[in-house]
Amino acid sequence: MSGLDNIPVNVEAPAMPFGSGNTGAILAELETSLQTLLTSGKEHSIDLRSLPLLPGELDYLRERLGKGEVQVDVNALGHSTVIETAIRGVWWVTHRNAIDNVMAEFLEVSFCPDIIRAQRDDVRESLETLAALLAGDNHS
Amino acid sequence: MSGLDNIPVNVEAPAMPFGSGNTGAILAELETSLQTLLTSGKEHSIDLRSLPLLPGELDYLRERLGKGEVQVDVNALGHSTVIETAIRGVWWVTHRNAIDNVMAEFLEVSFCPDIIRAQRDDVRESLETLAALLAGDNHS
Repeated sequence: MSGLDNIPVNVEAPAMPFGSGNTGAILAELETSLQTLLTSGKEHSIDLRSLPLLPGELDYLRERLGKGEVQVDVNALGHSTVIETAIRGVWWVTHRNAIDNVMAEFLEVSFCPDIIRAQRDDVRESLETLAALLAGDNHS
Repeated sequence: MSGLDNIPVNVEAPAMPFGSGNTGAILAELETSLQTLLTSGKEHSIDLRSLPLLPGELDYLRERLGKGEVQVDVNALGHSTVIETAIRGVWWVTHRNAIDNVMAEFLEVSFCPDIIRAQRDDVRESLETLAALLAGDNHS
């Protein structure tokens, strides 16, 4: 038995693998979408789970896009997070179910992430709640 | 010595004290601001630290407004948080400095909290960053 057999060998993936055509296409789509956002205000989102990404490509994208200052937690039926990337206007959105499995992952191009924005109907309803609350206070 | 002297007496503040004219005025201002938001899109914010609130009134307001599903953390120079209240369109915004003291506290009435929204100039800059990054990838 040779001494070499006893040397442990660790094969490690590089911290940031080279991007493939997939990741290049996603970055290019983000570029176009940001241009559209600026000129027309139109928002866009890329469903990362619908794409045939190779292992490591999601990590590569995450590394490439970096991290901004804003992190959002939404606790509705499951836990969702929105992480601002270092590219402002590009948000990494992850939806989890009640047992914390990732159900969907998107790159969203918008000024304000959709999941955060208060909807008009909800605001209208809240206004009624608030008015009722004030009326109750005045009668008590 | 009477037996009564041995009975411990706890004087506790009620969990939700009655609101004063201050808190009533703030809730009424929120109602008007939500109406304005819905009709004209105009946003509004109330600087809670500039008001002569009595002890307990901030807690009373917090209790009254409740808690929604969205919580936002912004880590810039200090740590800021935005808590969605149960009244949609009303956000409780707290700014802390680098040593975690509360520096400012606002009630913001908007569809999307101002601190989250990506600014056009920043998005434009990010678009250039992304374009440079893609150009680099194509030449490597």
